[in-house]
Amino acid sequence: MPHIDLGNDQPGIRSLFFYRPETAAPLSELAEILLRGPSTLERWERELIATHVSGLNECRFCTTTHAAFTAAQLPEGLELDVIRADVGSAPISDKLKALLDVAAAVQRGGRQVTTELVDAARAAGADDPEIHDTVLIAAAFCMFNRYVDGLATVMPDDLSGLAERAKALVAEGYLPTVAAARAHQAQAAVR
Amino acid sequence: MPHIDLGNDQPGIRSLFFYRPETAAPLSELAEILLRGPSTLERWERELIATHVSGLNECRFCTTTHAAFTAAQLPEGLELDVIRADVGSAPISDKLKALLDVAAAVQRGGRQVTTELVDAARAAGADDPEIHDTVLIAAAFCMFNRYVDGLATVMPDDLSGLAERAKALVAEGYLPTVAAARAHQAQAAVR
Repeated sequence: MPHIDLGNDQPGIRSLFFYRPETAAPLSELAEILLRGPSTLERWERELIATHVSGLNECRFCTTTHAAFTAAQLPEGLELDVIRADVGSAPISDKLKALLDVAAAVQRGGRQVTTELVDAARAAGADDPEIHDTVLIAAAFCMFNRYVDGLATVMPDDLSGLAERAKALVAEGYLPTVAAARAHQAQAAVR
Repeated sequence: MPHIDLGNDQPGIRSLFFYRPETAAPLSELAEILLRGPSTLERWERELIATHVSGLNECRFCTTTHAAFTAAQLPEGLELDVIRADVGSAPISDKLKALLDVAAAVQRGGRQVTTELVDAARAAGADDPEIHDTVLIAAAFCMFNRYVDGLATVMPDDLSGLAERAKALVAEGYLPTVAAARAHQAQAAVR
């Protein structure tokens, strides 16, 4: 049960966005830019970084949803379970492996990102914008994970809707939730 | 020295905002809403929560700047050094003390926020929106701190400009930096 009365029965971060649409707007915009905006990193690569950090933070809701968002955008022949079982031997680029190492350091703390980790990412082909965005994606999920679990939001037992949710995310992105949250708030104000 | 070439000599998070104004916008809007928007928590109370979390994350830049922003907005008779030296015996409300405990739990991890901590905050007079915003402020600074230190941004040795910066923050808020960042980007594109 959530720590506060959220006034809706949405799962995870969606329940927080419905509770407080004002902050949902910049939070969703941040996710949209970082995970889906113009970048030389593929969308599935960025979702994988988000999933990896959420896993390290043991945030079940974010790990499950972003794993689904990653899987829904993977190129043919790649399987998320294989990647997540052992990143080191997974058939992904050395660049992405090095960026996942940077992201894991960010999860432990900002000062854990060493020159060696950044140099390794650069040697594997990562450029400055990619390193920047990896650090900010990892940092942002240290926020999202804490927001979701710090208020004890609900993780649904029934995950049958997740594939549909992932399909909608791939098609429409992170911003429609803000409109839904505002509509909920407007309705609640009328009641 | 920063881990990547930021193309400007601004300090701390400002150098990151100048590097990537696209993400500066939602990040600044989030800070503006949480730390300065409508709330039953005073602005200095919210800045104190931000300072407290930044201190726990050992982020020197964020701790120093938000301490200055807190100090610049304290009611007469309160001194930040006294509060920070020993929060437990400080002449601040029990509600704020309990919310600082919630924020410290968020810093350790989302799952560290227990029902007991939330109940204690509620018993001390905190309502749901205050608990929500405390969790999100603490979570957001777990992001900001990691962003600032994860890219090894520069902390200026000379802090003589900090009082002036605090005065500007109190008067104008967090959004003018976004305009400055966009102007820098436009100038850089011309060069």
